[in-house]
Amino acid sequence: MDLRSKIREVPDFPTPGIGFKDIMPLLADAEALQEAIDLMAEWAEPRRPEVVVGGEARGFFLGAALAYRLRCGFVPARRPGKLPLETISREYALEYGSNALELQADALAGDTRVLIHDDVLATGGTARAMADLVEQLGGVVVGFTFLIELAFLNGREQLPGYDALALIKY
Amino acid sequence: MDLRSKIREVPDFPTPGIGFKDIMPLLADAEALQEAIDLMAEWAEPRRPEVVVGGEARGFFLGAALAYRLRCGFVPARRPGKLPLETISREYALEYGSNALELQADALAGDTRVLIHDDVLATGGTARAMADLVEQLGGVVVGFTFLIELAFLNGREQLPGYDALALIKY
Repeated sequence: MDLRSKIREVPDFPTPGIGFKDIMPLLADAEALQEAIDLMAEWAEPRRPEVVVGGEARGFFLGAALAYRLRCGFVPARRPGKLPLETISREYALEYGSNALELQADALAGDTRVLIHDDVLATGGTARAMADLVEQLGGVVVGFTFLIELAFLNGREQLPGYDALALIKY
Repeated sequence: MDLRSKIREVPDFPTPGIGFKDIMPLLADAEALQEAIDLMAEWAEPRRPEVVVGGEARGFFLGAALAYRLRCGFVPARRPGKLPLETISREYALEYGSNALELQADALAGDTRVLIHDDVLATGGTARAMADLVEQLGGVVVGFTFLIELAFLNGREQLPGYDALALIKY
């Protein structure tokens, strides 16, 4: 299946000048959802992850399904104020604006092998923040999976020494 | 496995007087995540859903994994402003405050069989809003799955005539 054909380009969303990649048609298509998860799982399996970390909010969709498929636990990296109890936080720059993500301070045991998932690799700021959070808790990042990579934004430069899979590249 | 033992009670979150059920320990536990999804899938399978709708944001975790397990598509019901292109919207009252959810206007073909998932059934406002949105697009709600039901809030009264499964009841 051509997964790219299930991505819808939306100009000027969420702000003028941004070409938004709408992944909703892919998620809503049962066959495309199966294929995306299975391709990411086949890449990730040899890296023996124990936990999948997914970024709020679009990284939750495929991240949680991937955790189920890989028989891993799932840990969401959430926006500030969403997680109860003690958290650790990391700010980062976005393609448009800035933001922060948090993990619960007890989300990972030390040396846990972690696969990080997000829907889109753009400038790499979000992915890098998630890796920093995981490593701050003593976790080991075994790789990244993205549905989409906007290669012209050079996000991989933020992830030196890490393995990363993107199913669809622009 | 006793799934209830993986839920952590957090008093006074997000506002004073609310006893928050933190599902993060369950999600992070690979075995508990498998069991929760498998139990919901076994209940849902005979109802032959084609799409799973999950509510922002905690309904995305198990909702998307359930869609993968059931070989369905996944459609997120999102907060206002998060979805590009034309949307339909429904406001509802929460246990604490009020909010709204949206679906993309082309998210479902008519007569699509839809399973609705959310993490918690509290007063039933969120679940009812999701059912109304699905039906506004011509979808057929074949059931609801919840991880947790706060039975003392009588949320099922908002869902007359619908089948609903909750794995853990308080």
